[in-house]
Amino acid sequence: MSGFETSLAALSALGDRRAWSLIVTVFGDMARGPEDAVSGPVLSRILEPVGVRPEAMRVALHRLRKDGWIISEKAGQTSNHRLSAFGLEQSEAASPRIYATEGPAAGRWRVLVPRPAPQPEFAARRDALAATGWVAAGGVFLTAGDGAGATAEDMVITGDLSALPGWAQAEIEAPALAAGYAALKAALERVDAALGPAPALAPVETAALRALIVHNWRRLTLKHPALPDAAYSAGWNGPACRRLTHDLLARLGRPRISGPDALD
Amino acid sequence: MSGFETSLAALSALGDRRAWSLIVTVFGDMARGPEDAVSGPVLSRILEPVGVRPEAMRVALHRLRKDGWIISEKAGQTSNHRLSAFGLEQSEAASPRIYATEGPAAGRWRVLVPRPAPQPEFAARRDALAATGWVAAGGVFLTAGDGAGATAEDMVITGDLSALPGWAQAEIEAPALAAGYAALKAALERVDAALGPAPALAPVETAALRALIVHNWRRLTLKHPALPDAAYSAGWNGPACRRLTHDLLARLGRPRISGPDALD
Repeated sequence: MSGFETSLAALSALGDRRAWSLIVTVFGDMARGPEDAVSGPVLSRILEPVGVRPEAMRVALHRLRKDGWIISEKAGQTSNHRLSAFGLEQSEAASPRIYATEGPAAGRWRVLVPRPAPQPEFAARRDALAATGWVAAGGVFLTAGDGAGATAEDMVITGDLSALPGWAQAEIEAPALAAGYAALKAALERVDAALGPAPALAPVETAALRALIVHNWRRLTLKHPALPDAAYSAGWNGPACRRLTHDLLARLGRPRISGPDALD
Repeated sequence: MSGFETSLAALSALGDRRAWSLIVTVFGDMARGPEDAVSGPVLSRILEPVGVRPEAMRVALHRLRKDGWIISEKAGQTSNHRLSAFGLEQSEAASPRIYATEGPAAGRWRVLVPRPAPQPEFAARRDALAATGWVAAGGVFLTAGDGAGATAEDMVITGDLSALPGWAQAEIEAPALAAGYAALKAALERVDAALGPAPALAPVETAALRALIVHNWRRLTLKHPALPDAAYSAGWNGPACRRLTHDLLARLGRPRISGPDALD
């Protein structure tokens, strides 16, 4: 198998290749500008090797238009698609997290102790606070972020935190995410070995691999608040996946997928 | 009534005048030196107005000897009592807390989040941590102290703490202590008014009032870990009692109760 085929197989085996999410990833990664229109045929050439069939592509584009993420315009026989203002905004919002080359700094932590409450109320609070970057551990909430979401009813302490004890790491390292990162790391290591230091790929191959790499990284990293790397146990592969992801993206380079010279 | 009688009545009404505790207080306050022997008659003259009968005095002195707090030596018709090495050590240990003119500084807090545990285990931990200055609130522990008692199994954050929310204040302000401080404050204010700016008292009266003031202050303040004044609600009278106690002790002066010129 070629380096491309080996890489494609390794990344495809990770599962979860929903067309909707892959298309959003392609725009967010390679066409994140208000003028970056991508033609239907170019999108198909990138995502067909990834396993997105024409019918699934049509359905996903229809839904993305309906949800206000993309705008499609006819141009003769084909359509050109680009991110809407809303789509651009969503992509910009997710971008710092996806493309950060390092985890949050470990210097300044916040611990929020909520008013003691029965379990359903605690769970509701946990979901609300997760949206502003807090994770639950031992009945309290932790963040390395700016502390948004805390109220005057909460006891909040800001300062230094020693390394988390094992029980707290076990609580913040959801088993599904831990397994996801472990599988992603193994796949990225295979891609890393298969491509070598100077990948010789056609632009469409580069685009397909970028889409799969970013897609798989984002679907894990956007699923949990960002804590400093030091918070996790040695068995947690999040930081290793971040490093591999950004190393591979840098080596692959970003192909041009919009305009008349797309994928040339 | 004289200023002394009014003060004596106000302080005696607070209750809990166990001879054992009053004797320890007298030594800790007025005879806290290895050579400071107090004769039996002097001790009686100080504590009889306070309500300690001769029989109760004998029983308490016997118990203090048996527990290793005091050493008694015959001198002709009477006995001389002084603190043992153990008694001196206990008095020294309690002294910073009793005689501190201010609460702990509020700058540096520690919050300890224990491994989640069932209630009996949590209660045992709460009792153990109280000994090193931690108070429980919302399932976590707070201290402004040096953090002794924490283990590698605990999640500990050190830093700034905003004012405590009402529910946390309610949890650290035990109702019995809150009531005790309120009653002590009222009594000390009566003493303050009755004695005036320059109390004209016999040394034995001064000694009796000091014993009662220190006794009543210590039995409350030694019952809970010291938190910065800012931690408490406006209705908590601990800081006001500390202020009144030290103001009155300074005004009363410390009479000599050992040696040949005792109570002269």
